[in-house]
Formats: sequence, structure tokens, C-alpha cells
Amino acid sequence: MEKTLEIWHELVRSRQMVLLDEILADEIRFHSPFVWKPKEGKAMAKFILSNVIEVFEDFRYVRQIVGETDCCLEFEARVGELSLRGVDLIRIDESGKIIDFEVMVRPANALQTLGAEMGKRIGA
Amino acid sequence: MEKTLEIWHELVRSRQMVLLDEILADEIRFHSPFVWKPKEGKAMAKFILSNVIEVFEDFRYVRQIVGETDCCLEFEARVGELSLRGVDLIRIDESGKIIDFEVMVRPANALQTLGAEMGKRIGA
Repeated sequence: MEKTLEIWHELVRSRQMVLLDEILADEIRFHSPFVWKPKEGKAMAKFILSNVIEVFEDFRYVRQIVGETDCCLEFEARVGELSLRGVDLIRIDESGKIIDFEVMVRPANALQTLGAEMGKRIGA
Repeated sequence: MEKTLEIWHELVRSRQMVLLDEILADEIRFHSPFVWKPKEGKAMAKFILSNVIEVFEDFRYVRQIVGETDCCLEFEARVGELSLRGVDLIRIDESGKIIDFEVMVRPANALQTLGAEMGKRIGA
């Protein structure tokens, strides 16, 4: 988990989305804050993560709770004029690749604004 | 943290809300999924937690990531006909009492329904 998180933090810092290729499993499931049903596959996860990282302003992690196969990274950021907090819930497989990525965001008004901004970028 | 979590799970199982008196710090801050500003104080946190536990149906924890002072408990539940997942992000003080409790919920439609149900019970 440590190595995977090291690469993750490096890509968030540097915005080098190509690093996702190294750490996402082909069969990753991505659970968005907006819909119940997960999106499946590496290409889809990469597409969503690349876009969401552009929508957040002043993005920073504020808490990290790390287990053997699962971790919870809490962040703060802004969308437009609203402050928000959220979590990335990450699960890795035996080879250290991310097989499950879930995002939750609060509060409700910031979630709604985030949804509108994401909708403009990626549709749906 | 282990002892605090043991009591927490016992109270969720038994719905003995009186156990909150043992594990909430007087100066607890409660961060709801709906508003940015935290609610402060033990009485307020007890009131909110007692109500939210009544609104969720089929509530169960599905993942637990535990650190020294912070933990992330992920749950699944239903509100009305909608399935949801959420996290309880818990921080304890040196004496093991909960000083910070944050809740996030996905997806957006379930969050909205939860808000409506909570509004009926406790008003805004």
C-alpha cells in the first residue's frame, strides 16, 4: 500500500495522469459520489480522475488512514466559491494495483456544484 | 481506539444511545453531510446520531480502516427505496473519547432523500 500511495501522491502533486497507468488495475471499479452503479475499467477510471482533479481548486489531503489493503484519504478543496471535504477510499489487489476507488463528498451544496462542473466537462 | 470502537459497535447493534454518553467528548464537533459548518457539543451530536440511526434501514458496516487516533467506518444502508454507502470518520482524544465525527454519504439521490427524512425528524 505504501508504494501505491507514494505514486498516487506524486501524480496528484505533479498532475502526471500517465502515472495512473502504473497503479490502476485493468478491472478497477470506480464508485462516484453521484450514482450508485460503479463504472468499470481502467480507461473509464482514468478519464474520470483526470477530469475531477482539474475541477477541484486548492486540493489538499488533510487526513490519511491506512490499512493493509484499504486506505481512506480525506481531502479539502474548493469548487467555485464553496469549500468541500471528501474521501478517496482505495482498495488494492495483491500486486498493489488499485482495484476499487470510491469517492464521497460533503456538504450537499458543494456536491451539487461539483456535479454541475463535472457534467460540463464529461457529459452525463 | 479499539475500546471506543467496541462500544460504538455495541451501541449501533443494540440501539442503546445512552452509551454515547461514555464515548463522546463534551466538546465534540459533528460534521454532517449536509452543511459545511460543524455542530458543536455532546448534546447536539447525541441528538443527531440518535435520529440518523433511526432513518437508516438495513444498516451495516462493510469496511473498517483503523489508525491510532482516527478511523474510517464504511457502511451500507437504505433510505426508502434507495441504497447508499457512507463513511463515519472518527477521531478520538487522548482519553479515547470521540472529539470529531464526520459523515459523508453517496450517491447524490440517496443523500437528498436522507436529508428530507432527517428534516422531517429534527427540522433543518
